[in-house]
Amino acid sequence: MRGKVEVLIEALPYIINFKGSIIVIKYGGSAMIKEDLKVSFAKDVVLLKHLGMHPVIVHGGGKRISELMEKLGKKPQFVEGHRVTDSETVEIVEMVLSGVVNKEIVTNIIKNGGKAVGISGKDNFTIKAKKKLYKDIDIGFVGQVEKINNELIVSLIQDGYIPVISPLGVDDDGNSYNINADDVVAEIAVSLKAEKLIYLTDVDGIYRDINDKNSLISSITVKELQNLIDSGIATGGMIPKLTSIIRAIERGVNKVHIINGTIPHSLLIELFTDEGIGTQITL
Amino acid sequence: MRGKVEVLIEALPYIINFKGSIIVIKYGGSAMIKEDLKVSFAKDVVLLKHLGMHPVIVHGGGKRISELMEKLGKKPQFVEGHRVTDSETVEIVEMVLSGVVNKEIVTNIIKNGGKAVGISGKDNFTIKAKKKLYKDIDIGFVGQVEKINNELIVSLIQDGYIPVISPLGVDDDGNSYNINADDVVAEIAVSLKAEKLIYLTDVDGIYRDINDKNSLISSITVKELQNLIDSGIATGGMIPKLTSIIRAIERGVNKVHIINGTIPHSLLIELFTDEGIGTQITL
Amino acid sequence: MRGKVEVLIEALPYIINFKGSIIVIKYGGSAMIKEDLKVSFAKDVVLLKHLGMHPVIVHGGGKRISELMEKLGKKPQFVEGHRVTDSETVEIVEMVLSGVVNKEIVTNIIKNGGKAVGISGKDNFTIKAKKKLYKDIDIGFVGQVEKINNELIVSLIQDGYIPVISPLGVDDDGNSYNINADDVVAEIAVSLKAEKLIYLTDVDGIYRDINDKNSLISSITVKELQNLIDSGIATGGMIPKLTSIIRAIERGVNKVHIINGTIPHSLLIELFTDEGIGTQITL
Amino acid sequence: MRGKVEVLIEALPYIINFKGSIIVIKYGGSAMIKEDLKVSFAKDVVLLKHLGMHPVIVHGGGKRISELMEKLGKKPQFVEGHRVTDSETVEIVEMVLSGVVNKEIVTNIIKNGGKAVGISGKDNFTIKAKKKLYKDIDIGFVGQVEKINNELIVSLIQDGYIPVISPLGVDDDGNSYNINADDVVAEIAVSLKAEKLIYLTDVDGIYRDINDKNSLISSITVKELQNLIDSGIATGGMIPKLTSIIRAIERGVNKVHIINGTIPHSLLIELFTDEGIGTQITL
Amino acid sequence: MRGKVEVLIEALPYIINFKGSIIVIKYGGSAMIKEDLKVSFAKDVVLLKHLGMHPVIVHGGGKRISELMEKLGKKPQFVEGHRVTDSETVEIVEMVLSGVVNKEIVTNIIKNGGKAVGISGKDNFTIKAKKKLYKDIDIGFVGQVEKINNELIVSLIQDGYIPVISPLGVDDDGNSYNINADDVVAEIAVSLKAEKLIYLTDVDGIYRDINDKNSLISSITVKELQNLIDSGIATGGMIPKLTSIIRAIERGVNKVHIINGTIPHSLLIELFTDEGIGTQITL
Amino acid sequence: MRGKVEVLIEALPYIINFKGSIIVIKYGGSAMIKEDLKVSFAKDVVLLKHLGMHPVIVHGGGKRISELMEKLGKKPQFVEGHRVTDSETVEIVEMVLSGVVNKEIVTNIIKNGGKAVGISGKDNFTIKAKKKLYKDIDIGFVGQVEKINNELIVSLIQDGYIPVISPLGVDDDGNSYNINADDVVAEIAVSLKAEKLIYLTDVDGIYRDINDKNSLISSITVKELQNLIDSGIATGGMIPKLTSIIRAIERGVNKVHIINGTIPHSLLIELFTDEGIGTQITL
Repeated sequence: MRGKVEVLIEALPYIINFKGSIIVIKYGGSAMIKEDLKVSFAKDVVLLKHLGMHPVIVHGGGKRISELMEKLGKKPQFVEGHRVTDSETVEIVEMVLSGVVNKEIVTNIIKNGGKAVGISGKDNFTIKAKKKLYKDIDIGFVGQVEKINNELIVSLIQDGYIPVISPLGVDDDGNSYNINADDVVAEIAVSLKAEKLIYLTDVDGIYRDINDKNSLISSITVKELQNLIDSGIATGGMIPKLTSIIRAIERGVNKVHIINGTIPHSLLIELFTDEGIGTQITL
Repeated sequence: MRGKVEVLIEALPYIINFKGSIIVIKYGGSAMIKEDLKVSFAKDVVLLKHLGMHPVIVHGGGKRISELMEKLGKKPQFVEGHRVTDSETVEIVEMVLSGVVNKEIVTNIIKNGGKAVGISGKDNFTIKAKKKLYKDIDIGFVGQVEKINNELIVSLIQDGYIPVISPLGVDDDGNSYNINADDVVAEIAVSLKAEKLIYLTDVDGIYRDINDKNSLISSITVKELQNLIDSGIATGGMIPKLTSIIRAIERGVNKVHIINGTIPHSLLIELFTDEGIGTQITL
Repeated sequence: MRGKVEVLIEALPYIINFKGSIIVIKYGGSAMIKEDLKVSFAKDVVLLKHLGMHPVIVHGGGKRISELMEKLGKKPQFVEGHRVTDSETVEIVEMVLSGVVNKEIVTNIIKNGGKAVGISGKDNFTIKAKKKLYKDIDIGFVGQVEKINNELIVSLIQDGYIPVISPLGVDDDGNSYNINADDVVAEIAVSLKAEKLIYLTDVDGIYRDINDKNSLISSITVKELQNLIDSGIATGGMIPKLTSIIRAIERGVNKVHIINGTIPHSLLIELFTDEGIGTQITL
Repeated sequence: MRGKVEVLIEALPYIINFKGSIIVIKYGGSAMIKEDLKVSFAKDVVLLKHLGMHPVIVHGGGKRISELMEKLGKKPQFVEGHRVTDSETVEIVEMVLSGVVNKEIVTNIIKNGGKAVGISGKDNFTIKAKKKLYKDIDIGFVGQVEKINNELIVSLIQDGYIPVISPLGVDDDGNSYNINADDVVAEIAVSLKAEKLIYLTDVDGIYRDINDKNSLISSITVKELQNLIDSGIATGGMIPKLTSIIRAIERGVNKVHIINGTIPHSLLIELFTDEGIGTQITL
Repeated sequence: MRGKVEVLIEALPYIINFKGSIIVIKYGGSAMIKEDLKVSFAKDVVLLKHLGMHPVIVHGGGKRISELMEKLGKKPQFVEGHRVTDSETVEIVEMVLSGVVNKEIVTNIIKNGGKAVGISGKDNFTIKAKKKLYKDIDIGFVGQVEKINNELIVSLIQDGYIPVISPLGVDDDGNSYNINADDVVAEIAVSLKAEKLIYLTDVDGIYRDINDKNSLISSITVKELQNLIDSGIATGGMIPKLTSIIRAIERGVNKVHIINGTIPHSLLIELFTDEGIGTQITL
Repeated sequence: MRGKVEVLIEALPYIINFKGSIIVIKYGGSAMIKEDLKVSFAKDVVLLKHLGMHPVIVHGGGKRISELMEKLGKKPQFVEGHRVTDSETVEIVEMVLSGVVNKEIVTNIIKNGGKAVGISGKDNFTIKAKKKLYKDIDIGFVGQVEKINNELIVSLIQDGYIPVISPLGVDDDGNSYNINADDVVAEIAVSLKAEKLIYLTDVDGIYRDINDKNSLISSITVKELQNLIDSGIATGGMIPKLTSIIRAIERGVNKVHIINGTIPHSLLIELFTDEGIGTQITL
């Protein structure tokens, strides 16, 4: 029993330090699929809230979109990582993300003791978007964030809820846009002046040498990270995510963490132990 | 111009009288389908909010559920008006109602000047439900309302939003239930102690003799309505709706209105003119 | 009925736009005398308040002052538009304005559904005044505004009342001053940072050529108005009013309107229709 | 100097005891006429406010009404103490009381350091009245209090003002009524649940034997007072006042005082010294 | 690391359950003397506060009183457990408890991250006391609680402080009384409607048989406890403490715990683990 | 009686002027020893609070420290006015100041109608201190103010209490320091942006010539005071006090008063009479 209370005592400085802070979390990958990881994630988020932090969750859901497309006889197509999104597809995206995935996460958090509310970027036009221009190829209703209108998120936080946000955008005419969740989460973190922005992924963090398991970077500055990108070590799909992260920190987010969501309770480990896990990016 | 201002002057007593009142609206039928009716509905709701009332919208969406089921190769089946709902079907219901229909209504209201937020009955477990037992037939995940937890709806109203609610229920285990929107809207009106509960339908109201266009009832008490039901004049699908209405009034809703949503601005006509339209049910 | 609701829908943008705005109104002329105009004025003011605006009324009452003077055997005398005001006369002014006219307006508004409170510029020393020097003629207790102390007006607005103000001023020694209501209303509008300052008069507005009924100016800037004055087109009694208006706009009032109070509901027409009536003066 | 501070020290228990209490004062007689008494009254009232009490003043003004009537060629007529009040007369009453007397008191208080606001019973329809039936004689617009609507008085107190009230009443049709100030003040004290109701008069209090200067009663219960009335010792004009007082105490006013307003600072003497002056009536 | 977070997850239901609860703690014995226990106690209290509970501490200090008495050449005397307290002695008690012990505890809590304020029962006359009559022996300024005036304690809690209270009482004449801390703490817990009242002692709890280490009672009702007392098993000094506890529960304290303060972090073990330690007394 | 009320009337401008002001008082000397002066001081402080001022009291207590030291066989030693303070001595200081003197003052104020709370500089670490270096002599735990953390004092004032502060300081390690009360009071006055800082002493004020009773200075500027010090007229123990005073005024305290606490009610005389007493120091 004594061991138990020592843990509480050790966590105290972190609890004091993060009280009242907004923690924006990108939720995706295995942590959103495996039953035990879903429960451990929900418990972590609920604990954060009860300890006085304000978690805000932005989720993805790419695999299930492709599944439904296929059931409906549509073939998913990608242009350099962007899903080509015709008007039928954007409705499928909405059905899957806002109709099913979002509500599953909400349900999971509530079952584990929290108060969660799921919204889409269309509610209160929280995520104003515009068509993403991609070279000279028309990739349809793929959007980029124009402006985060954080009023509803702030209301929900103040009313005691954990906001769960699906990354749909909307323009003035009411058109929906499928937006990359990594971009959305960074913009929301900036808009809320978040203390922390945490990416739950399926990897342990950023590696100095992707082929060397021992080269995991535990802490890095934006400047060093930029150098890494420039030197060509970071590759392909990782580059836009890293660029989002750098911009988020430059515009006021205090710390960004890339952690492995396949480790149960990785959120708590990162937040409440000195060791931490994953890669931490700071100014 | 003078004519215009006379209208404002005539509306004044209604504006004063309904200031601060909660008006729960069942939104469905043609008003939710035809483009011009959608716009006229949104404008009405926005005006109500700006005049100091608090509209709360509960929507249906049955036709579009059937459409998606058919696209996915599932044949919609009904047992005395209840859709047989297996686990695949309840997910389709969620996708259509919470993912698409709900957000379309939200978008429509915002485009017309309001601040709307769409929630499902699963958010904050607003609609606690249990399996509806229907004689000895298992009709699957069809639910009935166990309890309305109105906390989130009230938060949204107080924060200045128009809540738009999809009629999904949830039980303690997190299972989803497809619930009849007529039932849900009545329970929500009771829970919020609504001043008015308004059903936007495709008919003009209740007829004393369904074959006689001239027999439309403009005002009726719950006692008379019960007599009408008992005397067998009301038929089939109408009976559960009328029973819900009677119970809503008996448990504190001040007035219920059945109005024709195919008439543009029928909401405003009902609320701000002495004539009104449709059938009004009171204690 | 549909026509009626279209009016409400058309008024909506104005309602939204003016919500919370302070509208200062100079009330005088026929609108204060004819029974039906009195009622239409009161109804307009009450509607404004219920729609979320904050009307503040400043009234005149010159004719009735002269009447009482004559009954008391005193002959009204004017020097270039200024009533010569000995100490007996200033008491007569107070009796008529604060004792009778002010309370009549208050009663009228309350009878038509509003909550009104009548004050004089002496209450809480709201209108600090000093003797108006007029060339080398002593015109007695005629004052000019030294400072508006708007605290009481603001209290009344915040407590939900419509303030009705009689244009009496007071100096530190407690002497009363008869002040021109046009001046008072402009100073009050400036002090309250009013959105609009509206003069209800017996004319349609400002004419480019006083002899040409078709030359009514519907919109004019202060600069153009100054030119008009300089070019000698505006004459006599109009000049001080126009000068007050120019100064009011230069010191922060957004718009000034001169409208014809003999047209029933001219206030609403001006505020809630695109056409408007009268002359509008802006920066 | 030491003597001075002893006085402050002796006043302390009274200051503590009356903090936050509402003190309703009937102001009239010589105290409202003589220049030095006017100043001493104003200073007293201002001190009360600054010491944390809430004085509310109701004034009369009978003599000046008669003066103006005579100037206007109308002969004041009385039926057993009630002024016969035709429609011209009630306007004269309003002019004198609300237009002149009320604002003089307000000015006097402000000049001596207070924040005062003058209202009539017509403002916010504070004093709802009905025609006083007097045997079978029609005495015109003489009213009796039907209901005190204390909302405006309470607003003014909460906003830090000293309300000064002229005893005009109003009915639903907006007709004005001249009401006896003694009655009004008692009704207002009851409505405000006043700690004290103080009548500033020109006599020292109630005498057991009106012919014996030594028979002044310093303290009396309502029961004893009723006996006094029943035994015929109190006479004429005094009886209605005493009856008002008895009813005020029976309906919740804690103490009533009749004091001599011709003694400078009689208010303070009564409130802050053990000796007190005048007659105190309690349950 | 995973072990650590499991502890946090396990503590979560307790954290949720006790949020906002007042926890009154009797602090004394070894826990107040040994350096490491002092630190572990302070850390526990600070953690409680940061987790949203409201700890209130009442301390003793008997040994140090005797030490100072002896240094000053006074011989401590006891009559059945009560210290005979002449006027010199009560000043010594104040010096030791309010001057030294109280401030040491305050300092200790602040050094470990809390915000603490030390008060004596004399501050704001928080502990009104009267002389304790003890048979026919005069034991001097030994008091018993007459009334807890909890206003200051509540203010301090609301302002975010941890109140630390020395058990001095005061009567209307300002005389100080030495009061048994066990009595004081029970009265304060009742007055604050505490969720829990915890006695930190040097024993493990209540034993069914004082000679049998295995007979520790882990949970007992007040009725059973009364039986235990009546059957003579509880002895001597324990009886008044147990009687205080019974009365505290009967007057509204939810649970009382007797725990062993010599075990580091015994407070946290009791509050945040299912096992708990010590004896728990409930209704 | 009339005389009495004149005093109240004369005090009115001072009451109005000082409403809401913080008045920091150094309490010591005879005023803290003689029974009648203690009562007169308490009454003054209570009156100030009830008149809307916020008195804050800092006390000394040197004589009683020496007394207890001697009883305990320790010989008080001073180095140029500073008590040499070993660790035993600092505990004695705490026992006397925080344990006895502080609570006596609190009790005295409460008995005379106030609400007082006694704190030491250690509570909430209100007085952060560091060791005072005194040339090359180690005078032990004598401190100087490093920083006033006024949060607790402000909380107590806002909650309606009169704070009574003993001049103990504390460093980050929790060590106690004996600090000169004159220094503490000046720092507290600066930190609270006090309107007035009043020293209750045993002398009448500052003399231009210490040997000439008639040379008492009634008002002096800091510049003149500095000249006085520079010219060598002020001597010995007075110099540090005067230097504190000068610094307090330079850092924002409006006025400092040195008055004779042996004159009953000297506080009130200074605050509420034009004459005042003692010496007033201003910018």
